[in-house]
Formats: sequence, C-alpha cells, structure tokens
Amino acid sequence: MSLTTTLLLAEQVSPFIKHVRSSNPLVHCITNDVVQNFTANILLAIGASPAMVVAQEEVADFVKVTDSLLINVGTIEKSSAQSMLLAARTAMLVDKPWVLDPVAVGSVLKFRTQVVHSLLSYHPTVIRGNAAEIMALIGHKAQSKGVDSQESTESALTAAKTLADQYQTIVAVTGATDYVTDGKQVYSIAGGDVALTKVTGTGCSLSAMVAAFIANSSDRLCAAASACYMMKKAAELADKQQGLGSFAVSLLDQLSLMENIVVKEK
Amino acid sequence: MSLTTTLLLAEQVSPFIKHVRSSNPLVHCITNDVVQNFTANILLAIGASPAMVVAQEEVADFVKVTDSLLINVGTIEKSSAQSMLLAARTAMLVDKPWVLDPVAVGSVLKFRTQVVHSLLSYHPTVIRGNAAEIMALIGHKAQSKGVDSQESTESALTAAKTLADQYQTIVAVTGATDYVTDGKQVYSIAGGDVALTKVTGTGCSLSAMVAAFIANSSDRLCAAASACYMMKKAAELADKQQGLGSFAVSLLDQLSLMENIVVKEK
Amino acid sequence: MSLTTTLLLAEQVSPFIKHVRSSNPLVHCITNDVVQNFTANILLAIGASPAMVVAQEEVADFVKVTDSLLINVGTIEKSSAQSMLLAARTAMLVDKPWVLDPVAVGSVLKFRTQVVHSLLSYHPTVIRGNAAEIMALIGHKAQSKGVDSQESTESALTAAKTLADQYQTIVAVTGATDYVTDGKQVYSIAGGDVALTKVTGTGCSLSAMVAAFIANSSDRLCAAASACYMMKKAAELADKQQGLGSFAVSLLDQLSLMENIVVKEK
Repeated sequence: MSLTTTLLLAEQVSPFIKHVRSSNPLVHCITNDVVQNFTANILLAIGASPAMVVAQEEVADFVKVTDSLLINVGTIEKSSAQSMLLAARTAMLVDKPWVLDPVAVGSVLKFRTQVVHSLLSYHPTVIRGNAAEIMALIGHKAQSKGVDSQESTESALTAAKTLADQYQTIVAVTGATDYVTDGKQVYSIAGGDVALTKVTGTGCSLSAMVAAFIANSSDRLCAAASACYMMKKAAELADKQQGLGSFAVSLLDQLSLMENIVVKEK
Repeated sequence: MSLTTTLLLAEQVSPFIKHVRSSNPLVHCITNDVVQNFTANILLAIGASPAMVVAQEEVADFVKVTDSLLINVGTIEKSSAQSMLLAARTAMLVDKPWVLDPVAVGSVLKFRTQVVHSLLSYHPTVIRGNAAEIMALIGHKAQSKGVDSQESTESALTAAKTLADQYQTIVAVTGATDYVTDGKQVYSIAGGDVALTKVTGTGCSLSAMVAAFIANSSDRLCAAASACYMMKKAAELADKQQGLGSFAVSLLDQLSLMENIVVKEK
Repeated sequence: MSLTTTLLLAEQVSPFIKHVRSSNPLVHCITNDVVQNFTANILLAIGASPAMVVAQEEVADFVKVTDSLLINVGTIEKSSAQSMLLAARTAMLVDKPWVLDPVAVGSVLKFRTQVVHSLLSYHPTVIRGNAAEIMALIGHKAQSKGVDSQESTESALTAAKTLADQYQTIVAVTGATDYVTDGKQVYSIAGGDVALTKVTGTGCSLSAMVAAFIANSSDRLCAAASACYMMKKAAELADKQQGLGSFAVSLLDQLSLMENIVVKEK
C-alpha cells in the first residue's frame, strides 16, 4: 500500500485522444435515464460511436459486435438489472473490455448494491466511481449525499488499490483529484473545475469516455487515466462565466475540439 | 371563495433562494423520461442535489434519507406507478414533504388519472400543474392539448382553492400568471416569458424546484410561490434573441446566477 | 426502377413550414430514451406540440386525440414493444398518419427487427431511416456500425423504392443526400452538414418532424420531404465554429427561427 503516485502528463494523453478519433470505437451503453443524451453527445464529441441497446433479448448479441461496454446503475430497475448482468457476463465471455459505474452503491440502496456485487464477478475492466462509491464497494461506510460523495478521493485511494487487487481490475476514483490504479501503479490527475459537479452526468459520461479509451488499447491503465485527463482539461477550458447552462455546452465544445488543444500544448 | 390575492414580492423570495443554496437539499425525483436531464440540471443550478432513484426495491429506503420528493406522472407506466405509490406513501409516513405533478391528467388518459387519485390519498405537500390539470383534478372538463393547457390560470383559481381545501394541501397553478394557494391565502406571480412554453420540461422542472424550496422550510406556501417567482424571473432575464436552443441554455445560466440578481434588485 | 429524381425546392417547402406553425399539430411520440428531450424541443421549435405517452394502458386512447404518431425503436424493450404495436394498430384503425423510425434494424438485433416487421403490417405513412436500415428492411445485408449506416443513401435508393411499393408507403432514406419516395416519385434534398452525424438524435428528431409535417396534410410525400429540407437547411445555418455543443444549441435556434429565413430566401 506504499505505491508511488505518478502525475499523468499531457504527452501521455495525446496518443489516446487521437486513437479514439481514428478508431471510432463503438461503445455499447447501458446507462441511467438522466444522462443518456449527454453521454451519447460526449462520446460523439470525442470521436466514438455510442449505441444504447438495453433489451434483454438484444444485449448479448450486441456486446459481441461492439468495441466496449459501459454499465451504469444510476436508475437501475429489475428489468434493466437483468440486461446489465447478461451484457456483463457476455463481455467477460467474449473478452470485450467493459466499465462499471456503481452509482450510489452503499448501505441505503441495497438492490443496486447487490446487483453491482454480482456484476463484479464478471470482471469489469475498469470501475469508475466517486470516493464514497469506491469505499462502499470494499465495505467501508462512506459519507455520501444521494449520488454525490462527501469523501475526498485521497481518502478513497487505499480502497481503490484494495478493490483493484481484489478484482484484478483498474479502479478510477474521481473527484477534485482523480486517481487511477491497477493496484500496482497509480496515476493522479489534478485540475478540472468544480463546475463539473454542478452539471448532471459529467461523472457518468466520464465512465463512457473511459469505455471508449480502453477499446482496442493495449495500455488500459494509461487509457483510463487519459480519459479522466481529457475531461478535466475540457472543464478547465470551458466557459464558466455565463452560468451552468453555458458551461455544459462549452464542455461539449471543448471535448469536440480537444485534439488540437492537446497537440498545441506540447 | 372570496380570498384576497397577494402579489409575491422579490424581498419575500430572496431568503428562500438563499436557503436552498445554503442547505443544498437532496431532492428525490421520480419524473418522466423527457425531462430527467433538464430537471437534474435545474436543481443543480439552484443549489439543490437531485437524485433519480426509481426501482420499487429502492424508493422507500431512499425517501427516508432525502429532504423532499417529486413525483411527476408524465411518462408513467405500470411499473413506475408502483414506485410512485410506494414513494409517496413512505413520504407521508415519515413526514417528508413531497410535490405531485399530475401531467396530463383528465378524461383521455385514465390510467394516470386513476394513479394520481391514489397518490392524492398520500397527502402531497404541494400539487403543481397547469390550469387544465388542476381543473381536471376536481372533476372539471378542461381544455387541453396533449400535455398543454388551453385554459387560463385565472379560470382555474377556484379549482385550485377547492383542491387545496379538499386535500389540505398547497396548490400551484402555473401559466401566464401563477397562483399558489393553501385554500386560505393566495399568492400571485406575474411576469415570466412565453418562451417557457416552448421549451420542454420547464413546468416539470418548476415542480422539482418547488420540492427543493419546501425542503426544511417552515413556510411552505411562500416557499412554493418563491420557486415559481424564481423561474419566471430567470425566464425574463434569459436571452430570447437567438432562438429556443439558446433560451433553454440561458434559462439554466440565469437560474445558476440568480442569488446575486435578486439581491441587486432590492 | 427508372424513376426520375426531382430536386425539392425552397418554395415547395415554405408552405409546409408555415402549416406546422399555424396548425400546431399534436405529435404523439413513442421514442427512445436517448433522444426524448431533444425530440420534444425540436418539435416545439418548429411549432408542433410533442406528447410522450407510453403506457400500454394509455397509448390507444391517446392516438385517437393526436394529429400524428411517431414510433422509434431505438431503445425498445418487451414492454415498450407492446405499446408500439398497440399504438400503430390504433393509428391504422382510426386513420392517423404515423412515422416508423426503424433504428438499427438488421441481422444483429433480432428482437427489434421482428417487432419492426410486425409494425410494418400496420401501414406506416412514412418510414424514415438511414441507408443501412432501409436496406435491411427489404432483406439486404447492409453495413452499419451500431446505430449508424456505413452505406450511402444512393446505394439504398432502389431499396427505398421497393419498400415504398411493397408497403404502399413513403420512404425517406436520409444521409449526405436525402431521398423521399412513394415508389412513384422521388424527391432529393442535398446540403445539410456532417455535424448532424455528430449530435445524437438528429435523425430521430427528423422522424418526429416528418410526423409533424404529415399531420393534416394532403401532400404527404412533399410534406415528408419538406421536413428533411428544413433540417438540412437549419444545419447549414447553424454555428459550427464553437464545437458540437454549440452546434446542437444553434440547430434548435435555427429551427425555431426558420419561418423567416425560408421566406427571405425566395
């Protein structure tokens, strides 16, 4: 648990941003009803192809033709839970990378917490959550308010490493500083902007970006961390002067223009 | 039925806007699929914390940890109806304030109308609807077009008072002029902008704002009226020159900046 | 199959745009969860009234009071499939015009493809899809990537005519150039902008616009083609310099302002 944390650099991120744009990965999203539109638009903005296919009759066949899968339990119900389990199991069996976003898991919402623990048995490639969610996954009592964490990501770093070790996965715990670890290495990403916490779906969409970044990638740890970097950088560049409506629009703008900006930065 | 109508003043509204920002209420929303994203962003813009939890397995436990609840029947189905009934019943039992938005109730859509009448038995703290919906709730045949009223709010004011008396609740009937009554007092709020009727979800989101305003408030009548005032004021300040897309973004901007504006106005 | 293709002219389109604004058609939408908000806002921007009613208990009664119906199978599930079939059957029986958007039909997603073939038996007034979807409907193996076509609309024109003949319907196959045919005549619409493919729901919303345009219209072929023209023109006028977030907002702006622009153009 004394692993060194490495600051992720812009030059490490750029090749991943370009790879998404050139390879145009098809990302299968089973996500919550609040963020479907925003998530699809964010994936399009970074050069990926979103596809929301949710029927129990269809998800297994669809996973096989996609490049990666996102499962987000935000507005889970009995029926969608079945689709999630089927899709995740198929992803494991056909070796498709997939991302788990365990929205609001913890002691209050027992149904989703139980489903998430079943999903963990299908070996997610990456788990992306806020501090409270990552801590809850290893059984810690963490402070949260609805879907928002009241814990710092620093306080969840040990939990992230433990979780990564336990499930042989990558864990991205995101907040004021993001940490992305496979239990052996830890990348940290600072920056971003507090306005990200005031627009719904920025975390959920980041999970979708992670799914796009790890598609067809041999360095999934750096790919996942690069997605986090891209979101923070876009938030820094986005206009925060006009209010939150304009910020959300500008965030999409900045993501859609990002290739050049990161190149210029070097 | 000869109650005096009082014009709500900016100085009455300001403390409620500030209270929402400082207390950051957690608002549990069971709302329709068209407006989930917009509703969440509007709640964030005014300083509240939205959380959409809809599973029958989860709603009762979640109501207990939230500050208020919104139930909107816009895209109701058999399964979501069960969640709504369970959540409303729990809200009543644990004494959480809750808002009912009876979208498109009336003689055409019998299923939702039946569910809404069951929901009324769980004592909503506030009912927010357009004129046709409020009139339909007391059995009047009102003119509507889909989800939109073709009746004026003036023509629904008597129905609003009757409904408030009958269910010992607060009724907000909103339109060109908003009226908010507990059957004893009536607040009126003029202003706003017709563009509000040309962006989907402004009424639904106003119901969510009402839920945020009545959370932890001792003067729920004035709190509900203040939410209506804030929405109208934001619509007045929002840019209407570029078109409806920009107006919706600007409306969110104005809501997110509103604390200062109201203060300046004094 | 040697039908002449006629270029649709602005002066043919203007009366349809005005007719939608003056008649304010009520468009019943049973559409996918990704695009519900965007679709509703686009319908409002062109002067129509959107209403999303989805419960099996309600759709048949609602179809009877609306001006047209849109069915889009993007995020179809067992329950919504039943609502779609019931709504389409009712539309046929009460002679309401309706539009079918067969999102992602084809060999991979068998459930929706089967439902779409059942829906075809209820005589859609218009089928609007991309090239791969239209080709798949007559049994061709077409290249697609998730929900996006990798075929040109030219290559699907023969399929569109065949489909129109086979089901006595209008087929709009849209992409770089749109073709709208009833099997006898073909209108083509060039222009638009590639940015339309980078914002989710532009095709789905175009299908909703088609539903608004064919409502209460005696020339449904020209009405459907005019909807396609309006979307392409709005995309040309919309701002593409700021990025994809701003483009989506500007597209809504341009649609909401469109009456004047087309008039000015004459």
